Amino acid sequence: MLTPRAADFPRWYQDVIAKAELAENGPARGSMVIRPWGYAIWERMQRELDDRIKAAGAANAYFPLLIPESYLRREAEHVEGFSPELAVVTIGGGKQLEEPLVIRPTSETIIGESMARWIESYRDLPLLLNQWANVLRWELRPRLFLRTTEFLWQEGHTAHSTETEAREYAHRILHEVYEDVLVNVLSIPVVLGRKTVRERFAGATSTYTLEAMTGDGKALQMGTSHELGQNFARAFGIEYLAPSGHRELAWTTSWGITTRLIGGLVMVHGDDLGLRLPARVAPVQAHVLVVKAGDGVGEVAGTLVAALRDAGVRTTLDDRVDMPFGRRAIDAEIKGYPVRVEVGPRDIAEGRAVLVRRATGAKTAVRIGAVVSAVMAALAADQQALYDEALAEQRSRTAEVTSLAEAIEAAGNGWARLPWPAVGIEGEATLNGHGITVRCLVRADGSVPGSEDEPGLVAVVARAY
Amino acid sequence: MLTPRAADFPRWYQDVIAKAELAENGPARGSMVIRPWGYAIWERMQRELDDRIKAAGAANAYFPLLIPESYLRREAEHVEGFSPELAVVTIGGGKQLEEPLVIRPTSETIIGESMARWIESYRDLPLLLNQWANVLRWELRPRLFLRTTEFLWQEGHTAHSTETEAREYAHRILHEVYEDVLVNVLSIPVVLGRKTVRERFAGATSTYTLEAMTGDGKALQMGTSHELGQNFARAFGIEYLAPSGHRELAWTTSWGITTRLIGGLVMVHGDDLGLRLPARVAPVQAHVLVVKAGDGVGEVAGTLVAALRDAGVRTTLDDRVDMPFGRRAIDAEIKGYPVRVEVGPRDIAEGRAVLVRRATGAKTAVRIGAVVSAVMAALAADQQALYDEALAEQRSRTAEVTSLAEAIEAAGNGWARLPWPAVGIEGEATLNGHGITVRCLVRADGSVPGSEDEPGLVAVVARAY
Repeated sequence: MLTPRAADFPRWYQDVIAKAELAENGPARGSMVIRPWGYAIWERMQRELDDRIKAAGAANAYFPLLIPESYLRREAEHVEGFSPELAVVTIGGGKQLEEPLVIRPTSETIIGESMARWIESYRDLPLLLNQWANVLRWELRPRLFLRTTEFLWQEGHTAHSTETEAREYAHRILHEVYEDVLVNVLSIPVVLGRKTVRERFAGATSTYTLEAMTGDGKALQMGTSHELGQNFARAFGIEYLAPSGHRELAWTTSWGITTRLIGGLVMVHGDDLGLRLPARVAPVQAHVLVVKAGDGVGEVAGTLVAALRDAGVRTTLDDRVDMPFGRRAIDAEIKGYPVRVEVGPRDIAEGRAVLVRRATGAKTAVRIGAVVSAVMAALAADQQALYDEALAEQRSRTAEVTSLAEAIEAAGNGWARLPWPAVGIEGEATLNGHGITVRCLVRADGSVPGSEDEPGLVAVVARAY
Repeated sequence: MLTPRAADFPRWYQDVIAKAELAENGPARGSMVIRPWGYAIWERMQRELDDRIKAAGAANAYFPLLIPESYLRREAEHVEGFSPELAVVTIGGGKQLEEPLVIRPTSETIIGESMARWIESYRDLPLLLNQWANVLRWELRPRLFLRTTEFLWQEGHTAHSTETEAREYAHRILHEVYEDVLVNVLSIPVVLGRKTVRERFAGATSTYTLEAMTGDGKALQMGTSHELGQNFARAFGIEYLAPSGHRELAWTTSWGITTRLIGGLVMVHGDDLGLRLPARVAPVQAHVLVVKAGDGVGEVAGTLVAALRDAGVRTTLDDRVDMPFGRRAIDAEIKGYPVRVEVGPRDIAEGRAVLVRRATGAKTAVRIGAVVSAVMAALAADQQALYDEALAEQRSRTAEVTSLAEAIEAAGNGWARLPWPAVGIEGEATLNGHGITVRCLVRADGSVPGSEDEPGLVAVVARAY
């Protein structure tokens, strides 16, 4: 039914997205319809991210979709980076507009303009904002979730009185929000590092990233957190009255994570049967399947559903016995429900149900009275098992090398780690020529560098989506 | 500080929006920045609505922002209704587009196109979808929250196999989602009724509405639910294979409620001191204010905050004793926190705190140990008190009249109810000439009519925002 991963990974990916009913292409180039199952996963991600963003002190707000073209021009690198990707509104209310409006590709400029008005003195700092929004970046080679013209995201924007505080906040989001959700909710192991000058966000002074390994050994950037220095503060006049009585420029950050995460889940955890969802992000954690009709089967299934829900397990019931069981079981596998509980007349007669774990494929007969505890144990164990499996894969497919030639060779099958001095700006261009990028720079101990000039840095290089 | 309501209601409204830091104008015409306090209120509304939408069986999804212009043209009334309000993207990725794309003013067309692909047989019905999204309708006379070029909303779209089922679902949303949230969460009394042909949604066969009375006696449409008949099904080919083996056209509905609700809250409950929030929608329910520094004051305030939070009360602490108390108290009043708990050295000495209820202005000294229960009682009582007050106002300012002339007179100060046959299509045009509209038609017993031709209908007429 699905193309095997080994045969054609990108095709398998498309198949899973379609058959699991996660999303499909919209009519305009690069646009995407997120179907209910895909959107339910996004809602769970949003909730987990939003709780942590609020815990980090940021407040949600909403800024306009349409930005005057002149705003983007105020920060030179920013406009250069985004100009080729803009969608431009030239007609509004039936009339040609005097100044064209661009659909936000990101909101540093329009939020910077508000911050400049809202901040008067050091008492107004830090100003910690976040918004959940759609953005548009014209995409010539779209791929559902990974690269679409319109996508959904959260974008955080903060202003601080010192560079140190801004840096600490950018790192706090990287670790306490993004890494925590990726590792502990999505079971996705990530390498955290610093982007090279060539790869960093247009207008940033530092870009930090979280990179995951996909099932075909490529890299996928899962989120980024940027220090913007005083670039946007200067462009928009984000100033504050310091305790000294002088007016000072603020230091700003921005950080975002997108619907790409859904594509990441598929590419990291998916197998030849479809999606595999870790329990914490699964909109359905246990799926009770009535195998076929029979005396008392419906009642037992209903009782199990109620008991599971009472225990806080997100549970659905499939009792469409007029449809072939095999087709329904395959559909549940493709959609990635962590645990299936199958109940049929024969099971009932023996006082048991069959528990099928999606992560491992393991099937176990379980006494009806023990189903709830068995499901809860399976959910917890498989949350960890998926992480361990992905981490083992990432490690086994990461080569430690010392030369560009070896790195290029290794990137045919996975990631390569090599000393950054062995790459450098010229080597980075060479890698790019082979379709390989420096995903990030890390310190030897795995921590995130403060600059790309630190001694002893390691470059993680790979092909990427 | 605020313009008094009686002096200039629209100016008072603007003042509250600005001073309560709910929102402000964005740079592009009619655009709006929703500030954190305004957005926090919206998040609470979203949660309440979303829970009920899901309970009504609809699933969230997300459809593209950009719609090919040709889609809108497929339904004649729809394109006629929306054409003057469209924002049009003509440039994408640096190039002139072959077919211009409109920013969604609403999504019947693009969702209709997906429904047509997703629905095969009667087994796929009903298809119940909802999305939370931004939409754009070019606005020449913008007013924050009430009428902005871009606004946030939820739009539900459903397809059914029979007209009866579609009608029942449109009513179910009207009552179980919208009326329930407006009345029981926002404490806003509403009149439910049917829009006249002149006022109904472009492309609908029936539009049902919920109308609230603002503090200056005008009407504000709070939400609408539409039967679309087979108009969009015909335009987009939303067909299903019936059990009979024949292909049939589906019956569709749509329904939406917007960030206008925030403006409604201000206009219905606000007073000369600012916003008044019912507890269920208030992001902050109790605000503990340290009057000034003193022995043990900080500790008592901290203990009260913790105890209130433990009791499930959304609580904030203001201990900025370096700022004048009066200014902080006024700010809390403008923002509309339902209850203030004031704690100062003198209160502590007497073992009490002062509880100030925003709805009534009542101040009471309460023993420290009794603060939590007093706050909870006040929140519950004032949730109801705000409703009762608004309902009394609505009733006292609604005149029962029998002629157009009387209705025009009455609409100078409130609403008028008069027999629909005394208005009719010609009378409706006359009213419109006086800046008055038929807000809705209701039956004599207050229920919602199935057609405007029913005998004995009453027209509710008013000036409106």
